[in-house]
Amino acid sequence: MSDHGARRPDHATRRAALRDLLVENGVDALLVTDLVNIRYLTGFTGSNAALLVYAWDAGEQRTVICTDGRYATQVGEQVPDLHAEIARASARRLVELAGEWQTGRVGFESHVVTVDQHRGFLEWGAGLEFVATPGLVEQLRMVKDAYEVDRLRAACAAADAALAALLERGGLRPGRTERQVARELEWLMFEHGAHKIAFETIVATGANSAVPHHRPTDAELAPGDFVKLDFGAVVDGYHSDMTRTLVLGAPADWQREVYELVYAAQRAGREALKPGAACNAVDAAARSVIEAAGQGELFVHGLGHGVGLQIHEAPGLAKTGTGTLLGGVAVTVEPGVYFPGRGGVRIEDTLVVREGGPELLTLTTKDLTVVD
Amino acid sequence: MSDHGARRPDHATRRAALRDLLVENGVDALLVTDLVNIRYLTGFTGSNAALLVYAWDAGEQRTVICTDGRYATQVGEQVPDLHAEIARASARRLVELAGEWQTGRVGFESHVVTVDQHRGFLEWGAGLEFVATPGLVEQLRMVKDAYEVDRLRAACAAADAALAALLERGGLRPGRTERQVARELEWLMFEHGAHKIAFETIVATGANSAVPHHRPTDAELAPGDFVKLDFGAVVDGYHSDMTRTLVLGAPADWQREVYELVYAAQRAGREALKPGAACNAVDAAARSVIEAAGQGELFVHGLGHGVGLQIHEAPGLAKTGTGTLLGGVAVTVEPGVYFPGRGGVRIEDTLVVREGGPELLTLTTKDLTVVD
Repeated sequence: MSDHGARRPDHATRRAALRDLLVENGVDALLVTDLVNIRYLTGFTGSNAALLVYAWDAGEQRTVICTDGRYATQVGEQVPDLHAEIARASARRLVELAGEWQTGRVGFESHVVTVDQHRGFLEWGAGLEFVATPGLVEQLRMVKDAYEVDRLRAACAAADAALAALLERGGLRPGRTERQVARELEWLMFEHGAHKIAFETIVATGANSAVPHHRPTDAELAPGDFVKLDFGAVVDGYHSDMTRTLVLGAPADWQREVYELVYAAQRAGREALKPGAACNAVDAAARSVIEAAGQGELFVHGLGHGVGLQIHEAPGLAKTGTGTLLGGVAVTVEPGVYFPGRGGVRIEDTLVVREGGPELLTLTTKDLTVVD
Repeated sequence: MSDHGARRPDHATRRAALRDLLVENGVDALLVTDLVNIRYLTGFTGSNAALLVYAWDAGEQRTVICTDGRYATQVGEQVPDLHAEIARASARRLVELAGEWQTGRVGFESHVVTVDQHRGFLEWGAGLEFVATPGLVEQLRMVKDAYEVDRLRAACAAADAALAALLERGGLRPGRTERQVARELEWLMFEHGAHKIAFETIVATGANSAVPHHRPTDAELAPGDFVKLDFGAVVDGYHSDMTRTLVLGAPADWQREVYELVYAAQRAGREALKPGAACNAVDAAARSVIEAAGQGELFVHGLGHGVGLQIHEAPGLAKTGTGTLLGGVAVTVEPGVYFPGRGGVRIEDTLVVREGGPELLTLTTKDLTVVD
C-alpha cells in the first residue's frame, strides 16, 4: 500500500510549520536538542546533534544543524538542504552562533533540556534571552503526514504478518516458554520487514497475563492459559504497537466474559476517536464500559497513547489527558482488565484519527482466538 | 564462573556508600529520578519511579521509593527493604514528603532533571533548598561490585558464544547481507543466554566498515571484504560490548597492515588500564601508536567508555576524559582506523581494571581471523 503515501518525508514543510509556532510563541529561534525532534525536522539519525531553527522570513537560510566528526559524511547525505556545522559540543556551538548572530529570544526544549545544560546555555550565549518553549515539535509530530502514515502502516503490517506466521507454524503451544515465543515473534517481525523491534516484547501466559507490563520469563505455556502478546515493529523509525490475548484450548466461561468485556471497551474507545474529541473523553468512553461491569478497578492504566517516531508520544488518552484530537493523529487504544494471580486481557490497536472514523492500521482479528 | 561473584546485588551497601557522598556534598537527602540509578540503588526495574535517600544516621529507615499503581506488586517484591509510596507523579510525591519532613537541603540529579521538572520541585517543595548534585550515583556505579562483574562476565560470554556459533555455522559468507548477519548474531546471543540485545548491532562489510557507526543494510558480503561486527548482550541489566573485524578470504597487504596497527594500539590501551591511571592517558597510550604510524586523523573517536547497567556510562576514555581509574571500573577499549570509501578496522574488548593488569571479559580471539 506504499502508493498511498508520499515517498519521502518533507522536512522543509515540517520546518515551515514549526516556524509558524515560533512566531506564535514570540521567539526568534528554537534550539532543538531532542534527537527525535531533530530527526523529524531534518532526517538526521546520528546520536549527537543540535539544530537551530530561525523564525525569521529568511529563517530557512539561516537554520543550521550541528553534529560531530563521526557524522560529517552522514549529515551531508541526510540533510543536504541545511548548512551543517561540525563540533563535538553541538548545542554549545549553536548557542555561540546564535549569540554571534544576535538572535535575541531563543526558545529551548525545557521538557528535555537538563538543569546543567541550561546553565551552559546561559554561560555560552552572551546577550541571548532563553525562553522555555516545551513541546513545540511534539505538538507538530502528533499529526502524521502521508509519509508517516505510510511508514506506520508498514510497521503494523510487519507485526500483523509476524503474528500470523507464528500461529501458522504452531509457535503458541503448551510447553514453550514465554521467552521462546517472544524471540520467535521478534525474529518473524524482522523476516516480515521490521528494521528494529519497537520495545521489549511482552509475552505473558496464565497468571502472568494479569501483570500489565510483564517481562517474558521461562514460564511455560499451559492448556487453558490466556497468552497476552504485546509487541511492535519499527520501519524507517516508525513504531507499531499491538496487543492480542489468545486462549490455549477451550476458554472457560470467565475467560470469555472478561474477553468480551475488554473487546466491547476497546470498540467503544475506537468509536470515540474523532477529530475534536477530548483525549480524556476517549479514555472515558472505554473506561465507562468496564466500570459499568463493576471491573473499573482492574483497568489500572490509561487507554492509549500517541505513536510515531517514538513508541510513546503525545497525545495521552487517559483520565488526566488534556487537549483534543485532530485528524491525522496516530494513537493506540488498549484497555485491559487484570485479575491478579489469575489472568488478564488487553486488546490494543494502532489507529489514525480520521473524519468519518479512525483508520485501523493493525489488522489482526480481535475475535477471541482459540489456539488448539 | 558464577561462583566468582556474589549471588545477589547488595543494594543496602550501595545506599550506604551513597550516604557518605551525601554527607560529603552537604545535603540532607538526594532525590534520585534517573531510573537506572534507582535500579542500581534498589533493584526496582519499572518504568516510573523516584527515590529519596536520606543522609542522616537513620537515613535508611527514612529512605523511600515511589512508583505508580501498575508496579505496586513489583515494588514490594523487588524492594522489600524500603518503604514504598504509590503515586503516579512519583517525584512530586517525594518532594512533598521531603517538605513535610522538613528535610532542608535536598540534592537533585541536575544532569538528568529537566528545566521543567526542576520548576516543579521548587513549586512542590515549600521550605526546601534544592542543590544541584550531578553524577553522584554514576560515580559509585563506575566501580563494579562482585555481583556486577559476574553479570558483565555472563553478558560477555553470551556474545563470545554467539560469535563462535555464527562462524561455526558458516554465517559469514559472501552473498549474505549485513542485515541477515546482524539478525542471526542477535538470535544467537539470545540462544546463549542474553536477556536483551545491548544496542543496535553493527555489521559493516567492505567500504561500509569505514563508517564507525554503520547501520546494517542489504549490502552483501563479498570476497576480500573487511567485516566489522560490533555487538553486545544484556544479562540481568548488564551490557557487554565487543567489536571484531574479520576478513572474508585472503587479506590484502593493506588489510594486514591496518589490522596489525589497530591491534597494537588496542594492546597498548589495555596495558595502560591500571588503578590510578588518568583516563586521558589511557586514550593517549593507544592513540599515540596510531599517530606514530601517521594515521592519527583516521582514529576519529574516543578510545572507550564505561559499561554496566548502561552501554555507555562513566568514565570516558578519550582525549577530553577527566579523572583517574580505580580498581573495579569496567570499560571498553576500542581503537579504530577508518579509510573512507575503502574499509576500516575496530577491535574492542570489555575489561575490568585490576591491580596487576585488567581482567578481560570478552574472550574471542583478536588474532586476524580469515573466514574462508
